[in-house]
Amino acid sequence: MVSIYVHQNGETTRADTIDPAWLKAGSPVTIWVDLSAPTPEEGRLLADVFHFHPLAIEDALSAIHHPKIEAYGGYLYLILHGIDFQQEDHWFATRDVDFFLGPNYLVTVHDGRSRSIAGVQQVCDKHDRALAEGPAALMHRIIDSMVDNYRPEIEALEEHMNGLEDLAILGYKPDLVRDILALKRDLASLRRVVIPQRDAVGRLARREFAAISDELTYRFRDVYDHLVRLADEATLLQDRVTGILEAHLSTISNRLNMVVKVLTVMSTIFLPLTVLTGMWGMNVPLPRFPGGEAVQFWWVAGGMVAIAGSMLAMFRHNNWL
Amino acid sequence: MVSIYVHQNGETTRADTIDPAWLKAGSPVTIWVDLSAPTPEEGRLLADVFHFHPLAIEDALSAIHHPKIEAYGGYLYLILHGIDFQQEDHWFATRDVDFFLGPNYLVTVHDGRSRSIAGVQQVCDKHDRALAEGPAALMHRIIDSMVDNYRPEIEALEEHMNGLEDLAILGYKPDLVRDILALKRDLASLRRVVIPQRDAVGRLARREFAAISDELTYRFRDVYDHLVRLADEATLLQDRVTGILEAHLSTISNRLNMVVKVLTVMSTIFLPLTVLTGMWGMNVPLPRFPGGEAVQFWWVAGGMVAIAGSMLAMFRHNNWL
Amino acid sequence: MVSIYVHQNGETTRADTIDPAWLKAGSPVTIWVDLSAPTPEEGRLLADVFHFHPLAIEDALSAIHHPKIEAYGGYLYLILHGIDFQQEDHWFATRDVDFFLGPNYLVTVHDGRSRSIAGVQQVCDKHDRALAEGPAALMHRIIDSMVDNYRPEIEALEEHMNGLEDLAILGYKPDLVRDILALKRDLASLRRVVIPQRDAVGRLARREFAAISDELTYRFRDVYDHLVRLADEATLLQDRVTGILEAHLSTISNRLNMVVKVLTVMSTIFLPLTVLTGMWGMNVPLPRFPGGEAVQFWWVAGGMVAIAGSMLAMFRHNNWL
Amino acid sequence: MVSIYVHQNGETTRADTIDPAWLKAGSPVTIWVDLSAPTPEEGRLLADVFHFHPLAIEDALSAIHHPKIEAYGGYLYLILHGIDFQQEDHWFATRDVDFFLGPNYLVTVHDGRSRSIAGVQQVCDKHDRALAEGPAALMHRIIDSMVDNYRPEIEALEEHMNGLEDLAILGYKPDLVRDILALKRDLASLRRVVIPQRDAVGRLARREFAAISDELTYRFRDVYDHLVRLADEATLLQDRVTGILEAHLSTISNRLNMVVKVLTVMSTIFLPLTVLTGMWGMNVPLPRFPGGEAVQFWWVAGGMVAIAGSMLAMFRHNNWL
Amino acid sequence: MVSIYVHQNGETTRADTIDPAWLKAGSPVTIWVDLSAPTPEEGRLLADVFHFHPLAIEDALSAIHHPKIEAYGGYLYLILHGIDFQQEDHWFATRDVDFFLGPNYLVTVHDGRSRSIAGVQQVCDKHDRALAEGPAALMHRIIDSMVDNYRPEIEALEEHMNGLEDLAILGYKPDLVRDILALKRDLASLRRVVIPQRDAVGRLARREFAAISDELTYRFRDVYDHLVRLADEATLLQDRVTGILEAHLSTISNRLNMVVKVLTVMSTIFLPLTVLTGMWGMNVPLPRFPGGEAVQFWWVAGGMVAIAGSMLAMFRHNNWL
Repeated sequence: MVSIYVHQNGETTRADTIDPAWLKAGSPVTIWVDLSAPTPEEGRLLADVFHFHPLAIEDALSAIHHPKIEAYGGYLYLILHGIDFQQEDHWFATRDVDFFLGPNYLVTVHDGRSRSIAGVQQVCDKHDRALAEGPAALMHRIIDSMVDNYRPEIEALEEHMNGLEDLAILGYKPDLVRDILALKRDLASLRRVVIPQRDAVGRLARREFAAISDELTYRFRDVYDHLVRLADEATLLQDRVTGILEAHLSTISNRLNMVVKVLTVMSTIFLPLTVLTGMWGMNVPLPRFPGGEAVQFWWVAGGMVAIAGSMLAMFRHNNWL
Repeated sequence: MVSIYVHQNGETTRADTIDPAWLKAGSPVTIWVDLSAPTPEEGRLLADVFHFHPLAIEDALSAIHHPKIEAYGGYLYLILHGIDFQQEDHWFATRDVDFFLGPNYLVTVHDGRSRSIAGVQQVCDKHDRALAEGPAALMHRIIDSMVDNYRPEIEALEEHMNGLEDLAILGYKPDLVRDILALKRDLASLRRVVIPQRDAVGRLARREFAAISDELTYRFRDVYDHLVRLADEATLLQDRVTGILEAHLSTISNRLNMVVKVLTVMSTIFLPLTVLTGMWGMNVPLPRFPGGEAVQFWWVAGGMVAIAGSMLAMFRHNNWL
Repeated sequence: MVSIYVHQNGETTRADTIDPAWLKAGSPVTIWVDLSAPTPEEGRLLADVFHFHPLAIEDALSAIHHPKIEAYGGYLYLILHGIDFQQEDHWFATRDVDFFLGPNYLVTVHDGRSRSIAGVQQVCDKHDRALAEGPAALMHRIIDSMVDNYRPEIEALEEHMNGLEDLAILGYKPDLVRDILALKRDLASLRRVVIPQRDAVGRLARREFAAISDELTYRFRDVYDHLVRLADEATLLQDRVTGILEAHLSTISNRLNMVVKVLTVMSTIFLPLTVLTGMWGMNVPLPRFPGGEAVQFWWVAGGMVAIAGSMLAMFRHNNWL
Repeated sequence: MVSIYVHQNGETTRADTIDPAWLKAGSPVTIWVDLSAPTPEEGRLLADVFHFHPLAIEDALSAIHHPKIEAYGGYLYLILHGIDFQQEDHWFATRDVDFFLGPNYLVTVHDGRSRSIAGVQQVCDKHDRALAEGPAALMHRIIDSMVDNYRPEIEALEEHMNGLEDLAILGYKPDLVRDILALKRDLASLRRVVIPQRDAVGRLARREFAAISDELTYRFRDVYDHLVRLADEATLLQDRVTGILEAHLSTISNRLNMVVKVLTVMSTIFLPLTVLTGMWGMNVPLPRFPGGEAVQFWWVAGGMVAIAGSMLAMFRHNNWL
Repeated sequence: MVSIYVHQNGETTRADTIDPAWLKAGSPVTIWVDLSAPTPEEGRLLADVFHFHPLAIEDALSAIHHPKIEAYGGYLYLILHGIDFQQEDHWFATRDVDFFLGPNYLVTVHDGRSRSIAGVQQVCDKHDRALAEGPAALMHRIIDSMVDNYRPEIEALEEHMNGLEDLAILGYKPDLVRDILALKRDLASLRRVVIPQRDAVGRLARREFAAISDELTYRFRDVYDHLVRLADEATLLQDRVTGILEAHLSTISNRLNMVVKVLTVMSTIFLPLTVLTGMWGMNVPLPRFPGGEAVQFWWVAGGMVAIAGSMLAMFRHNNWL
């Protein structure tokens, strides 16, 4: 679907087609063209009306691409990633939004599920000001919203990781390793997206491009700071996942120690007693304890209790129990 | 085998020998000479006709070389690696293709198994346009195809790794460690090839060489992006292999825990029972349970069942079973 | 709460409001405005009186921010972190103090718990000299005090880590892993704060900003050196925590060895004895030892002691006991 | 021993002493002076005839030095390492060769065991051309040969590592860890030598020094490529050694699992049987099985076989055997 | 204690006080002032006579500081660390020596235990030449001696590490982990001192400071090379310590395997025998072996020996013994 916003004489209106006059040099009009999950037909607009480079168009219309920024003659081409809600076997996913920023136009291409674009469109529908500051300010507004959407996801992940840490240390969950591996993989993907994104926005913030005014530089520096923190946190979270795996291994070892201790205590107590009963069961005349026939059993049983008790005392003394 | 393509007056034809006039400065002819598994005789062409540097020729005719790009006076010398199908004890292999790029010629040297060269030759046989854009565009076409061939191999590897991860976590496969080590080694080799390759193509994309026009720079930037992603993915896959090994070790430890638990439960239940039967087997008068001679056995057997049952209950309470 | 210090004609006094004349270019007055846990009303001062950039104001009034330094037209904006006393489940926390440094003014914003600001305010209340050297020297004084406060916390942590190391090696503490993970996380946070802080102060020390005189450069170099050491120590402490975890795992393994040795020694001694008593308990005629009926028992018992003794001797010979 | 080669009027001859006239500026003579395990007397030549810097001479005459390249006024001083055959408890060793490269002379200092120097001397004895290209080309020839000698050693090491990997995974070798540690140490030493060597030769290849002509730059770039690959391979081999250690640990754990499984299976089968025999051995009247006195034994024995069989079936069902 | 050496008219003498005329610009006198464990009174000399910067003086008189080099107007301030003999629970310690290098003076400050300073003082007492080359050459002489003192300590450490490696692999030492952790910590401290030291001397060697002549640059390059090797070796030793810990863990696991094997062998042999003796001890009529009452025992005992023997054979076949 193609949505066209035109800002002219202080008013923002929707249009159905693009008047080629708007794109001429020195045109006083600001336009924003949004291609949401464009059909091949709609995609042709990029080549026929805007004359973007074929390779940039190919990137914009294809699905998976790394964040990057590239200067072509007369316009900037930018790929950034928004974060998406949690899904099946992934903690989160990212999806790319493509920007073409020209002197008086902004073209955005995405798969139709970008919350940030939808939000800015609502603002444009209601207020004239959103487009009044020009296409670069509009792009900043979209990017800022995209980066802000990362925050709650990261916080949810942090929360989840606290739970995982408790599971690893206290309880026992057989498929914890599978969870940890999946989380590790997702965090690696996140870093792989956030770091080039940070670098691309960093270039916007460093006055590298004439299209970005000083005032916008300050604003992009702010977005850049957010991305620096996100990249940092993704690294910290990766380290924590590694720590959780180590804690899990250490918990397994501790449990093994405990189980083997129980085994050893039982064997140490009952193996000698078995020998004792075996001795009094032999077909040879036995030594007699004082007190007559009737109390022989109690002498032996008492000896066995004494042996077991002293062994328990020894274990307790050695801090095993 | 030597294949010679000549583009002249808008037409591409095959030739049997190279007319030295074609190589003169300002010649309007574009030629592509492909040496496929050249005999020593055919290899002499590089020195006799093109007068390339002896060391570059030596590199081109020898088997193993790292990707690199080098500027000699009047021509560029480039080594890149194509990826090869899976073989015996390796997941994949790479084989080098050498390029000499001059003002109006391209010379390629390979071992005759390059799918990309074969594909571009078919295009040249059918269409005149392939050579019309000059030798640098032709080189881009070959390199682009070589890099595209990496993608399906990487995806197959990713698929395989999912299976390996399941094996490491759930099932038990004695020679899993051997598989993991082999995979680790292959991924290290892949990175060792892809990273210098990425850097060599990156230099083509950064206008470092006069032979590459602005338009071609955009195209090589696209190839460069693909190589950046490949290098990234090779690193991610290496991290995943490490994670799989850790998961495998953790699974082994978990299984040991389980086995030792069974041993401990059995010993804890049956060792005391052995002592009990031993006591009633001793050659001393035993205490009698009420109910007469006939039910003594059932008293003892009942006591044993009671002990075993209470121990099982205790284990269940402690979450061992 | 807003505190205003005015240095005029060699005297420092407190003021209730800011005279706009003070902020004019070439004004001979030096002022320090401290916003301690400002109400939204008080925060408006930053925009209304000082006309700082909206994004810098937003950063200053929000809670969590990474250390950084930014030059705006006419003033520097700086975020640094002070360290806070130990709390609940964290070893320490950091809280940010924001600085706006103009030609003749310093504005500080914090949450009201900064010991360093409180200390410098006491100096300003008593002595005129604190503000006499200008706002940059005042800022150095505050930053120096903030960085000095890190030292005792780090030393307490080092002390604590010695204890943890002993626990990991000698004793046994079930939730040691939890402690180690928490400590690891806190140290990672510390490094994440100290390293950008070091870099921000490093830029102050490298004459990058005209507002910092040569003499102040020397002073900031001193603060920078402290931060270099703190960053270094945070890294060393992180390595030690990893070492402690490894030591803990090795201790667990050693203990398991010991427990299993006890089990093996007991089984090796008593299992053969059980068989021996079993043999003399069989319902078949037994071979007789010399010496008559009465000493048969002692022969068997003696044999059992001999077997047990020789096994103990063998274990001792193999260094197991 | 001092060997002096003089190239004059297209002819290379050996000389016994150095004519000071040869070393004058603009001298048409090329000379190569090789000091093989020089006596202190012979070493004085470096100071008395060539007037090299005392510290460079001290480095050249002492045993152990890192590869490096240094420009002194009028000459280059270069330390490189050749690789040596396998010895006692090391897989290989490196020994340094020192080069002084002046406008028309090359001085080499080594301990007399350099195969590369010996080889180039044989060439010089037979052919005039070796010295005809000047001292820098001669130096390249020696260095090229030194670097080529690394290749077979690395390949032998790779072969050996394959064997080690098999031992770690399949067989059991008690002192494998000792072998792995020694190998790890040697590989670390190798990298420590190869990396500065690569950087020193890289500087020769980058036209940093006027003494190296364009043509020689190409040749040193070739040597540099070899060293890049060696450094790469040393890193890969180090990673493989780490992988072998991990495989060894995993093999140990797997074996422990197997041993403990045997123990658990034996205990699980025989402990209940012991209790059973104990019950029928008690001094209390037993329940009778049908079929008369004579078949009581077979009932019990049959029950025992049934119990053992069902347990084995259960283990097999759980994939333990 | 303050020692003052004055070099005037080719002669070096000791002085008791500093004549301010010596410090004037263009003064022909070279002086060396050494403050050994200065009293606060003596320390005031730095401010009163030399007018050094207060922060540099504070650093010089305080105990712990990282190696660094700083240029102040008119003089260099340098902190380096000497290595100290082994002590209690550390393998070595480092202590700082501070240098102030002016146009014609050198001031050194240390805690009185520097062997290098003491040695150079003895040279100055005996020979005039030590001060003749100026203060920078004197500083080089001291630094060279300080760096040389590291070598024997590192070699002793290497020796010690060989012993530790043997202990980790062969023998068994319960507190080995504690030793390893202490060593690891000390090596980290060493690297933390050597690396900034290397960088500080590297700046002296790179002609960054006018006070260092070309000839002295060569000499500092030599010291720099030594420090590069020390830093390298500290890294290698750290890697070896990690390797030793891994070897230790692997040895523990191997020992556990061995112990558990003994347990399993004993149980596997004796548990079936126990059942056998139990069967012949049951109160039921037993099957009879041929040969009459008297040899029944020998049949059973023979069967038991046969079972035990065949099990031992099986274990040997499986390489367990």
